[in-house]
Amino acid sequence: MSAFTAVDVIRAKRDGGVLSDGQIDWVVDAYTRGLVADEQMSALAMAILLRGMSVPEIARWTAAMIASGERLDLSAVDRPTVDKHSTGGVGDKITLPLTPLVAACGGAVPQLSGRGLGHTGGTLDKLESIPGWRAALSNDEFIAQLRDVGAVICAAGAALAPADRKLYALRDVTGTVEAIPLIASSIMSKKIAEGTGALVLDVKVGSGAFMKNVADARELARTMVALGDAHGVRTVALLTDMSTPLGLTVGNAVEVAESVQVLAGGGPADVVELTLALAREMLDAAGLPDADPAAALRDGRAMDAWRTMIRAQGGDPDAKLPTANEVEVVRADTDGFVESVDAYAIGVAAWRLGAGRARKEDPVSAAAGVVLHKRPGDPVRVGEPLYELRADDTTRLPAARAEAALAVRVSATAPATPPLVIERIG
Amino acid sequence: MSAFTAVDVIRAKRDGGVLSDGQIDWVVDAYTRGLVADEQMSALAMAILLRGMSVPEIARWTAAMIASGERLDLSAVDRPTVDKHSTGGVGDKITLPLTPLVAACGGAVPQLSGRGLGHTGGTLDKLESIPGWRAALSNDEFIAQLRDVGAVICAAGAALAPADRKLYALRDVTGTVEAIPLIASSIMSKKIAEGTGALVLDVKVGSGAFMKNVADARELARTMVALGDAHGVRTVALLTDMSTPLGLTVGNAVEVAESVQVLAGGGPADVVELTLALAREMLDAAGLPDADPAAALRDGRAMDAWRTMIRAQGGDPDAKLPTANEVEVVRADTDGFVESVDAYAIGVAAWRLGAGRARKEDPVSAAAGVVLHKRPGDPVRVGEPLYELRADDTTRLPAARAEAALAVRVSATAPATPPLVIERIG
Repeated sequence: MSAFTAVDVIRAKRDGGVLSDGQIDWVVDAYTRGLVADEQMSALAMAILLRGMSVPEIARWTAAMIASGERLDLSAVDRPTVDKHSTGGVGDKITLPLTPLVAACGGAVPQLSGRGLGHTGGTLDKLESIPGWRAALSNDEFIAQLRDVGAVICAAGAALAPADRKLYALRDVTGTVEAIPLIASSIMSKKIAEGTGALVLDVKVGSGAFMKNVADARELARTMVALGDAHGVRTVALLTDMSTPLGLTVGNAVEVAESVQVLAGGGPADVVELTLALAREMLDAAGLPDADPAAALRDGRAMDAWRTMIRAQGGDPDAKLPTANEVEVVRADTDGFVESVDAYAIGVAAWRLGAGRARKEDPVSAAAGVVLHKRPGDPVRVGEPLYELRADDTTRLPAARAEAALAVRVSATAPATPPLVIERIG
Repeated sequence: MSAFTAVDVIRAKRDGGVLSDGQIDWVVDAYTRGLVADEQMSALAMAILLRGMSVPEIARWTAAMIASGERLDLSAVDRPTVDKHSTGGVGDKITLPLTPLVAACGGAVPQLSGRGLGHTGGTLDKLESIPGWRAALSNDEFIAQLRDVGAVICAAGAALAPADRKLYALRDVTGTVEAIPLIASSIMSKKIAEGTGALVLDVKVGSGAFMKNVADARELARTMVALGDAHGVRTVALLTDMSTPLGLTVGNAVEVAESVQVLAGGGPADVVELTLALAREMLDAAGLPDADPAAALRDGRAMDAWRTMIRAQGGDPDAKLPTANEVEVVRADTDGFVESVDAYAIGVAAWRLGAGRARKEDPVSAAAGVVLHKRPGDPVRVGEPLYELRADDTTRLPAARAEAALAVRVSATAPATPPLVIERIG
């Protein structure tokens, strides 16, 4: 019989105490094995949310989640491994151009990704709009592609941090998602278990992000950087703006198309800027400070790596992407400048169009989404297109129309635009 | 589809908000019907514990728990109905002599009781040590006995506040028992649903009680008095000391025997004092201020009511009670005065002897328990018995011996003894 009980652990945190290493190891392991019940873990998660955790507690919790499953060994890969994680934002397709770009510059990017419950699908959902592409790889296929191509984006296997998988699903239905210790340990346990040597975190701040203010984002970033360093993973974080959607597209196929534009040397300035900023951090962290990612975008090496990466997982990089049955163009009713495009409202509009899911078993529409024609600061004339709404089905348009109308503001004078990269931590 | 979701309700309380009437009605009803999951309710319970509830929120929560089941109609009973509830203490057998005593004085006491997870069994477990006595009555039997005898102690049926029944079991395993709003609403929903016209609360304070300090006990008492009054049940509370066990016996059969002593006009002074204090409050609340409970103990009317009440539920009031196989007498090793007998430690000792249960499906031992020979303030000589430990089985003795040894202190001078009734609220 164990020296610990769930009720004692819950009470200790409920009353503001610090959990011991033994308590943390026990409760994470017992929960993974079903000996601590969901209703007990959710009470503990709420106590953690309201009482907080010290950095050593979070580090131990993370270690216990890693220990609940396997930790991949990437030593068969000759190149330095470096991964990126974003806390998620509207129109955030950066993983798509960034992964092949860093590979083209000499790094190996072991991107294990998820589907997410966000406004659009996750990275895997976006890539699945490419005909033939498959998200599931065995560990051996994953390591082989990482070695041979240097770039792999695939689904995390069930053996990686199973405690986190179970806890994440529980938090989602119990109002306990918004706990910085649990967010940080969830992200870092998966990234550390995947075996990457270095990690760059893109911590989003603003209306379209999980963290609405810089102070919370900074706390989360610092916690994660400390966790990475404690586990021997060189970790750096950028706090980046998410008050406006990234780029001009929010959806699945439309974001793939925009990513391909970036890989072809074009694409929206903000997407290019953030892709390059993150690529430079990743290459630095990987010990490749002399690499020139801007050149790799210009000279086609990044696009070659993309095509190889997509083909390696069965995808056809030349195939036509799905298109929407319904496209509604919304036009400006006044002259002026686009003052703001609210990320959150655009995210909700895309979700209502079918680009995201309400429950984890729901499908997403590959073609649905929002395409912006103007971004904040752009001048606009009456009658010019502001944005379009795309859907498979007209019944989805009215609710999305209402959301999007609230998102885009036109005013008489050009607004100041905030910097995209707010702060670097690491 | 409902306008409410569990996650929204949890988040509102988590973030310190006040739940609306609609949210409370919905979440209690949906939980009772299984539409809100245990893991969601436990997260909400933890948020309530840490964030609190306003008095109107608690009143609405209580009303919703009452509405989850039936509310008994006691209008067929001619006498005024009045019940008592104790928040629970070590050696608290007061319900046993009090119920027939109040009946003997003209009241009708509809005592629906539980088994409890305390240091000893609950009131029903204690009475079950009387051969033949049965705890389960139908509603019709309950009302008939209340009408004919004026005294009934039986198990609450499943149709009474089923939301509370489900929530209570959940709180027990999720570290959320200690939330005053949930304690108050749990107690009051059951007492209001049983249909009593008046109610006297015995709110215990001290090491052997749930509330360790007067401030918490006062808050709980005030909350419950307000809830009773809001539902038309005249409610009064006494805060009473629980730093020392009540009387000389802690167990099941031993507490029945002590109760019978009180009904025969004897028994320990503190048990008699508290029984009479509560009887006077109950008779006042029932509109019978001229009744004389002390006389009813002296002249045998209370004993007659006890015998009638026990027989009405199949019990033999003359039967021999179970006795323990093992009795270990512990004697004083110094002269002096008993300075203190810690209620909590004696409670744990009784529990280790088998008088209480660890899990709700466990049986209790009728004969096990602790019998004190001395109480605080009593003089004692070397070699005199201090207390005895009783068990069905010797293997239970060592752990109980260690607990009991910590409980009883002997010192050179007589201690001051605190008053039994600390405060009256109502």
